[in-house]
This record gives sequence, C-alpha cells and structure tokens, in this order.
Amino acid sequence: MKSWFKSIENDPENTTYLLSKVLKELTFDKDGLIPVISQDYQTKEVLMFAWMNRTSLEETLKTSRMCYWSRSRKSYWRKGESSGHWQTLKAMSTDCDGDVLLALVDQKGAACHTERRSCFYLKFKEDKIKIISE
Amino acid sequence: MKSWFKSIENDPENTTYLLSKVLKELTFDKDGLIPVISQDYQTKEVLMFAWMNRTSLEETLKTSRMCYWSRSRKSYWRKGESSGHWQTLKAMSTDCDGDVLLALVDQKGAACHTERRSCFYLKFKEDKIKIISE
Repeated sequence: MKSWFKSIENDPENTTYLLSKVLKELTFDKDGLIPVISQDYQTKEVLMFAWMNRTSLEETLKTSRMCYWSRSRKSYWRKGESSGHWQTLKAMSTDCDGDVLLALVDQKGAACHTERRSCFYLKFKEDKIKIISE
Repeated sequence: MKSWFKSIENDPENTTYLLSKVLKELTFDKDGLIPVISQDYQTKEVLMFAWMNRTSLEETLKTSRMCYWSRSRKSYWRKGESSGHWQTLKAMSTDCDGDVLLALVDQKGAACHTERRSCFYLKFKEDKIKIISE
C-alpha cells in the first residue's frame, strides 16, 4: 500500500485533503490505468467495471460525464458518445489504498453494450450460470 | 472480448450454461488474477475491491466464504481469518465479457482493515477529498 494512504487512514471523520494531492498519490498500474466500478446512484446496482487513465479521470471530474480508457480500442471511451447511453457522474470515491475508483452515476438507458441495464447479468446458480438481467 | 461470452450475449433471459464451462472461459490476467467487487447483499454498499485466482474462486464457491488472493502478501487471503470479519458469499455474477466478478456478501463487522465498514471512505468533494465513512 502506498504510504500516503497509510499515513491518513487513522485520521478522523471529515478530515479533508487537496484533490490535487490525492490524484498524485493514486495508484495507476504499469499501463497507466486504474479500475473503476460504476454503480447506479439511486438503486446502488453495480452497472459496469472499466478503466481510466489519469487524463480520462481528470476529464470525468471536470465534465461530470464518465470518460473511460478502452483497453481493447486503446482510446478514450466517452460513455454514451456512440450509444446515447450517457453516464453522469454524481459522486466519486477511492478506497483505503487508492488503487480503485467507485463512481456513482446517473445512467441513461443501458450500461451494457448488450442493451442490458447492467453488465453483470451472468449469475452463478450452483453448478450453472444463468442469464438474469433483472 | 473472449469469443465465448460474445457468442452467448444475445441468448434469451434464463438461458443456463454449465459453471465448469464458464470458469474455463473467464479471463484471468497475466498474473492469473481476476478482479472482484464485493457488495453488501442487503444495503448494496460496495465494501471492497480485491483479486482472486482460479483456486481461490473455486474455494469461495465451495465454502461460501470469500477467499481472495493477496497481491501484496502473495498468498491466499481468507477474509476474516485474522480479523473475525468473515464474508459469507450470498450471490455471485460475472459480466458480459467475463473478466470481473461481483460478489454479494454478508459482511460481519468491517470490510476495511481500518475497521471502517467499507474501504471507499475517501469521497471526492470538488477540489477536496474527505473522509466520510457513513
């Protein structure tokens, strides 16, 4: 764990830090990426899991529109740009060791490219997996 | 995206597949790991984010006790073994491209090593980050 996050972990509730400092301390992997969990800000349903680089994170915070980094296309992925299924950022947090982001979003339409609301439609049921979109 | 997941994505609701098949098709990264999002099965709060390898996933499914792979300690991490903060698996799913797992868990006590319920206590607030455990 990065020592800076370790150094603040016992600080009391409501302590604040400069965002610019925290952005410097976040862990981006060797490809310059950090994982992002996107959750519906109202229902709390986990909608999708993707990646950002530093620039897409900064754009997301500036515009409040989710901008990921597509590892397959190796390009910025402004969610909704082609599908119209925009994600508006409502809140963001990072975890105790600053190596993952959690975004609460207002999702227009489907988060999943299959047109399902959430990408997590493959449910484990004993010795089977079942498509359940809810 | 792995072609097998692509091949089933238009299948209708409630289609089932053998778990053994799906486990073979999941994407584990070059270190043999797959990311895992753990969410409180009742409140839907995202509690933590960690990693599993194939063996820890199989153990988790068999025992219904969450068993991760600790990247820092390079060892199995049976959540709660040292802290008593066990996570019982209530439901699991994977996403449209089979490269991440979502676990709904019954969390005893704190998920975070800081004794906070969730690891995601560092909330972005404009140009600041604030400790808010909720």
